[in-house]
Amino acid sequence: MIVVLKPGLTQDEIQKVVERIESFGLRAHLSEGKERTIIGAIGDERLLADQSLESFPGVEKVLPILKPYKLVSREFQRVNTVIEINGRKIGGKKIHVMAGPCSVESKDQVLEAAIPVREAGATFLRGGAFKPRTSPYSFQGLGEEGLSYLAHAREITGLPIITEVLDPRDLDVVCRYADILQIGARNMQNFSLLREIGKASKPVMLKRGLAATVEDWLMSAEYILSNGNMNVMLCERGIRTFETYTRNTFDLSAIPVVHKRSHLPVVADPSHATGLRDKVLPMARAAVAAGADALMVEVHHDPENALSDGPQALLPDQFYEMMRQIKLIAEVIGRKI
Amino acid sequence: MIVVLKPGLTQDEIQKVVERIESFGLRAHLSEGKERTIIGAIGDERLLADQSLESFPGVEKVLPILKPYKLVSREFQRVNTVIEINGRKIGGKKIHVMAGPCSVESKDQVLEAAIPVREAGATFLRGGAFKPRTSPYSFQGLGEEGLSYLAHAREITGLPIITEVLDPRDLDVVCRYADILQIGARNMQNFSLLREIGKASKPVMLKRGLAATVEDWLMSAEYILSNGNMNVMLCERGIRTFETYTRNTFDLSAIPVVHKRSHLPVVADPSHATGLRDKVLPMARAAVAAGADALMVEVHHDPENALSDGPQALLPDQFYEMMRQIKLIAEVIGRKI
Amino acid sequence: MIVVLKPGLTQDEIQKVVERIESFGLRAHLSEGKERTIIGAIGDERLLADQSLESFPGVEKVLPILKPYKLVSREFQRVNTVIEINGRKIGGKKIHVMAGPCSVESKDQVLEAAIPVREAGATFLRGGAFKPRTSPYSFQGLGEEGLSYLAHAREITGLPIITEVLDPRDLDVVCRYADILQIGARNMQNFSLLREIGKASKPVMLKRGLAATVEDWLMSAEYILSNGNMNVMLCERGIRTFETYTRNTFDLSAIPVVHKRSHLPVVADPSHATGLRDKVLPMARAAVAAGADALMVEVHHDPENALSDGPQALLPDQFYEMMRQIKLIAEVIGRKI
Amino acid sequence: MIVVLKPGLTQDEIQKVVERIESFGLRAHLSEGKERTIIGAIGDERLLADQSLESFPGVEKVLPILKPYKLVSREFQRVNTVIEINGRKIGGKKIHVMAGPCSVESKDQVLEAAIPVREAGATFLRGGAFKPRTSPYSFQGLGEEGLSYLAHAREITGLPIITEVLDPRDLDVVCRYADILQIGARNMQNFSLLREIGKASKPVMLKRGLAATVEDWLMSAEYILSNGNMNVMLCERGIRTFETYTRNTFDLSAIPVVHKRSHLPVVADPSHATGLRDKVLPMARAAVAAGADALMVEVHHDPENALSDGPQALLPDQFYEMMRQIKLIAEVIGRKI
Repeated sequence: MIVVLKPGLTQDEIQKVVERIESFGLRAHLSEGKERTIIGAIGDERLLADQSLESFPGVEKVLPILKPYKLVSREFQRVNTVIEINGRKIGGKKIHVMAGPCSVESKDQVLEAAIPVREAGATFLRGGAFKPRTSPYSFQGLGEEGLSYLAHAREITGLPIITEVLDPRDLDVVCRYADILQIGARNMQNFSLLREIGKASKPVMLKRGLAATVEDWLMSAEYILSNGNMNVMLCERGIRTFETYTRNTFDLSAIPVVHKRSHLPVVADPSHATGLRDKVLPMARAAVAAGADALMVEVHHDPENALSDGPQALLPDQFYEMMRQIKLIAEVIGRKI
Repeated sequence: MIVVLKPGLTQDEIQKVVERIESFGLRAHLSEGKERTIIGAIGDERLLADQSLESFPGVEKVLPILKPYKLVSREFQRVNTVIEINGRKIGGKKIHVMAGPCSVESKDQVLEAAIPVREAGATFLRGGAFKPRTSPYSFQGLGEEGLSYLAHAREITGLPIITEVLDPRDLDVVCRYADILQIGARNMQNFSLLREIGKASKPVMLKRGLAATVEDWLMSAEYILSNGNMNVMLCERGIRTFETYTRNTFDLSAIPVVHKRSHLPVVADPSHATGLRDKVLPMARAAVAAGADALMVEVHHDPENALSDGPQALLPDQFYEMMRQIKLIAEVIGRKI
Repeated sequence: MIVVLKPGLTQDEIQKVVERIESFGLRAHLSEGKERTIIGAIGDERLLADQSLESFPGVEKVLPILKPYKLVSREFQRVNTVIEINGRKIGGKKIHVMAGPCSVESKDQVLEAAIPVREAGATFLRGGAFKPRTSPYSFQGLGEEGLSYLAHAREITGLPIITEVLDPRDLDVVCRYADILQIGARNMQNFSLLREIGKASKPVMLKRGLAATVEDWLMSAEYILSNGNMNVMLCERGIRTFETYTRNTFDLSAIPVVHKRSHLPVVADPSHATGLRDKVLPMARAAVAAGADALMVEVHHDPENALSDGPQALLPDQFYEMMRQIKLIAEVIGRKI
Repeated sequence: MIVVLKPGLTQDEIQKVVERIESFGLRAHLSEGKERTIIGAIGDERLLADQSLESFPGVEKVLPILKPYKLVSREFQRVNTVIEINGRKIGGKKIHVMAGPCSVESKDQVLEAAIPVREAGATFLRGGAFKPRTSPYSFQGLGEEGLSYLAHAREITGLPIITEVLDPRDLDVVCRYADILQIGARNMQNFSLLREIGKASKPVMLKRGLAATVEDWLMSAEYILSNGNMNVMLCERGIRTFETYTRNTFDLSAIPVVHKRSHLPVVADPSHATGLRDKVLPMARAAVAAGADALMVEVHHDPENALSDGPQALLPDQFYEMMRQIKLIAEVIGRKI
């Protein structure tokens, strides 16, 4: 941590800052420049993260040198985390595809998506039973009934299921059905939920919040790992910007950025990122080309009658074509689907 | 709702869209332009909000005419909501000031903030017992113990207290102590929490999320009102933008925007919006001048040793000066503090 | 254009709005809903674009139905624009790669980039002679001398050159040397420059501004086309968001969005979008997978000594590897490099 | 400047970075931490700004300590710049108000705005003769004819005039008429224009770009000062964010931020920032309360027929009321209007 001092301090004032730093067990290394004096605080600067050094008289600004996350970082673990679920490995050479409807609407509707997506090569089934909706008047999901329909589809297709949990009080029931727990973008900084899920025994997919920097996102993952659950994958699904042609702005550069900073696998969700059916195919290709470890894609057999997100759902044969194309791209970069 | 059709549809295709609209009990009003045919869907368009009309073949886009919120809107209630708490009225002529430390750290620390802020004219005491922190390694708050210190300070100063609730499971305990429940920016779309708080009997202050449009924010308030709790105030505390000199970008224009759209009172929080002590005074003045119904300001008697947000906390005498100045500005616009 | 009226207007007030619309030669189509009366203005609504209908008493808001651009739109020209430069066609099946240094620094430096990039398969040489720099103290480019070095490299390698023009007064000299004129992101709404370039006889590449929506960007292209120059290609190079790990946020979804709205070719620039050498390769792959018609990539033989943008420049052998990979991806989507 | 090295470098590799720094005449100060070795580069780090130290092998990142601007900084000049124009001083105790129409449309229209705004207390007349319009089909301004109408109004009212210059080739003609030259938001990084205006003898008002950080903005001002023109004022007029209720997001915190960093006066423009007539009054009050040295406000006697920006123009009596209120707020903070 570098502490930049205001110009014109007395030796006494400088000494006070030095003592403050040393009181936390760090060494203070003074360096007088032409226009500014700076102090290097040497040691584990995370000890100082909570300390209001910027409130100190004489301190102009504080520049951290180390990242504030630890367990999720590449420095902590150099090899990629590989998460195994029913024999499927996420984070390895194979790129997985999680597909299915936005909302679980009925037993049949889930099956009518699950069967063709498995045929096309999807390896996980997605579907929401607890739905976070902007409006209180929108369909809020079928709850446990919806989970049972997902489980039914898993029985028939063999596809493990991923589904969202919204509330710590629902965690037990969701864990009884789900193979992967999803934390949605709007709950990325719901720290109570993160802590509880950190104690759960199921793998987790943590979506990036609409206003989350990569650092915020990794810090939220750190909550889960530091509570004991090491099986976390991250999901890029678009951030909020001034552009409104697409629902969000798909930040594909975040994929190689996270891969450099962290050992956790990265999933990409072109359906939520764009919100537009005809943009899902090109952006799914782009996500694979950028290095995603898995994709999450919405598929509905009858999107005109979908209870949520119809405009972004692929029809089964569009999904089939998408799978065909991304398989070829995966090979180009030495992976497979 | 206006449905814009793609160019070149047949009469049959147009008829199908018309039938779809009418199947929801709305009237369809066709209007053929030079380049586009459009259909006005007349009736309560909220009935269609969930329907994927944009997925329909032949539909280019859908333009809503009405706002998606109802209970929070000015159309629903023309007069301002005034929330009464222990004889103090928020939303009326008087501008209230809620002040106190970011985190409750000890019994004495709360008092050392509470006494001078009451002296200076604050009418509510703020303080966090459950703290939403970006890092799992940061101080997470004292929990119920912290709430009891707030209650102790209320007993001594007479100031009602506002404090944050993070988890639906904590709602009961927080309600036993708090006079106003705060929902933080990061939980603005924690819909489980919104629903539970909608059933609580205490007034609520809902902070705007970092990536929330005014419409998203009002929709989250709608969750609370539609669950029965009408005593909601909104709090502008800065949004996330590309600018990093200040912690967030204080969107003061949101105050008159919300006042036009909604009958709910608006609070402004210059401490979190700027994150910088020396910006709190000018921005508190600006917030009052822009029409805020209340301010929320962080005050700490020893910010260098604060366990959170020290760099933005005012010292008691800075707070005193702020109160002096904003009282005069309030008078200019026909209000009082 | 849909004009939404405020509730509770008298027939007289409504009539005044109708007359206003009709005074511009449009037909007004009245439609009374339950909560709002709306008027459809039928005819060429661009006639009204300048008219302050939203200032009219009784008008709540105005919703445009048609896009404000015309010549650049897919409706105006259904087939893709293909721009031919020295026998190379941009916008057709072949994906072109424009590569070279950020700044022209010397005759040798240009050649040391130009020769290997041509070997690797690049089809255009890029290099800046007039440099838009944030700081007045940074290297501002060699001006005409730099242009002559580019021309020299063209003579030796046969690669046509693309270079930026900053000032209408430099247009003549740049046209004497360049094969494609580049308008930089910071000049995307320099309307004087756009107009002059619209009268030039050279093809143009228009970079997207840091805060430009797709619509703003297409409107700037419309300036050029409406002044007579139809050979315009657009270049996505990242927009400004809250994320700072990368220099900008590469909005790859803009590629299929523009392709749907417009017939103009789209170039992608992963070097400026990310600002990080090790992100150029994955994002170049992603750009091709998303459908870019050309790439622009910075290459420098000695980036440690580059006078600008060294940290994002590829070394020649990294560029070679990039070309190898994107050729394979191009084939997957039925194109070639 | 702090250079953070990658972990695990050899002494040789470290030495090479040290030598590189010293080759620019700076001293290198090595400091070995637990997890990272860092080097402090001591001396005028602006010498290194152009050098691609981040491209150097072994360098992880570079943290600047000093600001990249010099002449505009508070360190360079501690006292406020006060700009005198026809006896009016901007940057002193008095807050000035610049008012008038968006576009100059006719001789009479300018007068019909100029006379009442002077009556109400405005001290400068604004009006655009060269208009930067998003669409090539919109009214582009009257050019020199418009300037002559402004001069005519100045003759009658005595108000000095401020008007925008778009193109370096127009600078001479604009200088013949204008008292203050305005650089618009879209030209904030039109470096050719900045350089030319830096050589002009008239005071300049530099508007903040839609995507400009405070640092970018100050760097653009540095261009003007470093070319010799020290009479620069800055104008906050809203930045682009995801919020669309208002045209832009008025970043009022930028006023105290700039005042701390720089000695230049700051103007605020609530008309362009909000784009909504009924938001101009509260935001003008807020801007004064936040410390603005001047306001720029659009006034039109007949906004329904304005050729640009009618929806945000105040009517003369609304302007009068605004002046009445902001005079009182100015007094509260020890200033006057």
